[in-house]
Amino acid sequence: MSSAKYDVLGIGNAIFDVLVQTDEGFLAKHGMTKGGMALIDEARAAAIYQDMGPAVEMSGGSAANTIVGVANLGARAAYIGKVRDDQIGRMYIHDIRAAGVAFETQPALGGPATGCSYILVTADGERTMNTYLGAAQDLTPADIDPAQVAACALLYLEGYLWDPENAKAAFVKAATIAHQSGRQVALTLSDAFCVDRYRGEFLDLMRDGTVDLVFANEAELRSLYQTSDFDTALTQMRSDARLAVVTRSEKGCVVASKDSVTAVPAFAVDKIVDTTGAGDLFAAGFLFGLARGVGHQMAARLGALAAAEVIQHIGARPQVSLRDLAQQSGLPV
Amino acid sequence: MSSAKYDVLGIGNAIFDVLVQTDEGFLAKHGMTKGGMALIDEARAAAIYQDMGPAVEMSGGSAANTIVGVANLGARAAYIGKVRDDQIGRMYIHDIRAAGVAFETQPALGGPATGCSYILVTADGERTMNTYLGAAQDLTPADIDPAQVAACALLYLEGYLWDPENAKAAFVKAATIAHQSGRQVALTLSDAFCVDRYRGEFLDLMRDGTVDLVFANEAELRSLYQTSDFDTALTQMRSDARLAVVTRSEKGCVVASKDSVTAVPAFAVDKIVDTTGAGDLFAAGFLFGLARGVGHQMAARLGALAAAEVIQHIGARPQVSLRDLAQQSGLPV
Repeated sequence: MSSAKYDVLGIGNAIFDVLVQTDEGFLAKHGMTKGGMALIDEARAAAIYQDMGPAVEMSGGSAANTIVGVANLGARAAYIGKVRDDQIGRMYIHDIRAAGVAFETQPALGGPATGCSYILVTADGERTMNTYLGAAQDLTPADIDPAQVAACALLYLEGYLWDPENAKAAFVKAATIAHQSGRQVALTLSDAFCVDRYRGEFLDLMRDGTVDLVFANEAELRSLYQTSDFDTALTQMRSDARLAVVTRSEKGCVVASKDSVTAVPAFAVDKIVDTTGAGDLFAAGFLFGLARGVGHQMAARLGALAAAEVIQHIGARPQVSLRDLAQQSGLPV
Repeated sequence: MSSAKYDVLGIGNAIFDVLVQTDEGFLAKHGMTKGGMALIDEARAAAIYQDMGPAVEMSGGSAANTIVGVANLGARAAYIGKVRDDQIGRMYIHDIRAAGVAFETQPALGGPATGCSYILVTADGERTMNTYLGAAQDLTPADIDPAQVAACALLYLEGYLWDPENAKAAFVKAATIAHQSGRQVALTLSDAFCVDRYRGEFLDLMRDGTVDLVFANEAELRSLYQTSDFDTALTQMRSDARLAVVTRSEKGCVVASKDSVTAVPAFAVDKIVDTTGAGDLFAAGFLFGLARGVGHQMAARLGALAAAEVIQHIGARPQVSLRDLAQQSGLPV
């Protein structure tokens, strides 16, 4: 195994976020399931947008948010994801490169527009996402550069990649190359409804060793094992995954392996403004900690710190230097 | 004079804001004058954007921000401004209509892209704007619907309209119709450098009665009369303008006419995050107050309230209900 050029390489659906603060009535009127990510077609996107209030836009995408967080903390990070060469896609490319992330995926020159997620943020800070995949549907195995994957210490993949038609094949190609190169592979389960769509395949990925590390929140964990009992689900997770990190909002997280379960507290926040990106940024801190070799408990604290920053403002990308925040909190960077 | 369909109609450059937090070094490196609005061409826009950090995007434009504030406070508002029919332009149209503003200007089907302002926000909250006018250059007198202008109690125009080639003619057409219909016309001087470009013309507009009410901040007032002395400049302003409102940041504002000068305090804020839109939202509150007939002092307090909200977050559009804020502060809405 040669030395790594990058600490973390993320692959995901490249999605531009259109965020709006709204009330519960809007979710009800449009039949949205609060807190979830629903896939929508162009017609539904138009109907939702037409009825939405004035929005704020910024680059998003689950794995991309994580990778931006990793770079923000100071590690070497790269990303693969598909936008179209349109106005929004060019902003997307600008933003991820400006965050210090290596990004070389060729934008689609035709086909659907850059993907958008219409994100409704309610007064309690919860976010409800409606995602039009757009150009993200065009990510294929050809977008995976084997040399780049082999040169990254850790590969990070999102469960959302199961939604577009060809991204799953790109995922498997990348995971295979990573393991052949002696690298580690991490997966986030992404969303409870996504887990419901691909439960069997996600379990296979864990059980056959395609992934070494799994991130999930409580809802995703319960969905994976179709149980409402957290402890039952966690026990099953420990037998299926080599290492799992389960986030529990204000209760912190649990780092679980076959041998041990360690609970790590969250950081207190004054006011939750928008939970968009909470899980993504938790993963960023944890992966950064792994890259620095600080141990799982400290890595989880770095995750908690990054998540605490991102939920205190609108949008899923950090607004301050997480590196500075970590230093102020006495965490290793 | 027939009863008005709208309380305020604004005309301005329709600009999409690309906001980034940065340091003083970035301004120096790119030769920017802190706190100003500089017009840039496509090449300079590309160079600045290439070097900028990850951004947040939202609709902007000075008069548009004001009109959105007027609507947010609960008055009937309309806007005229030119975007192109591109991705950003369609977001712009969505946002202003979603804010409750009547907006019917036809987007340009060809020509330059929707205008963008690259806004650098430094740690002290000051914003430095670099504006590529784009499609805003295509606003012409044909975009002014005489019936709409005649149906608005108050016409609000931005000094920035002097920059695009044909917008000035649109401005004059609208002002003429407004006065013929017995309506009032207000002008914001927009920017100290803009005043420097069009000093003589702005003074003529005031002296010949084309405008009834002028908004300026201290820098614009000083630029108009080419003096560093505030009192000297204010004295001249009182002889040139029927009514003037001069904003003075944390010192509040001064409402001045030939007969009287009234100082009105600002609202205290915890932390200034981004001054983008401060003057625009002050004007929104003041115009709303005029529409409600509350008197100049109370109108200025409404302006101060709206300005205080917008400087406490990134971006020039209100993030909460200004109407609720005003009610909580015991101001009339």
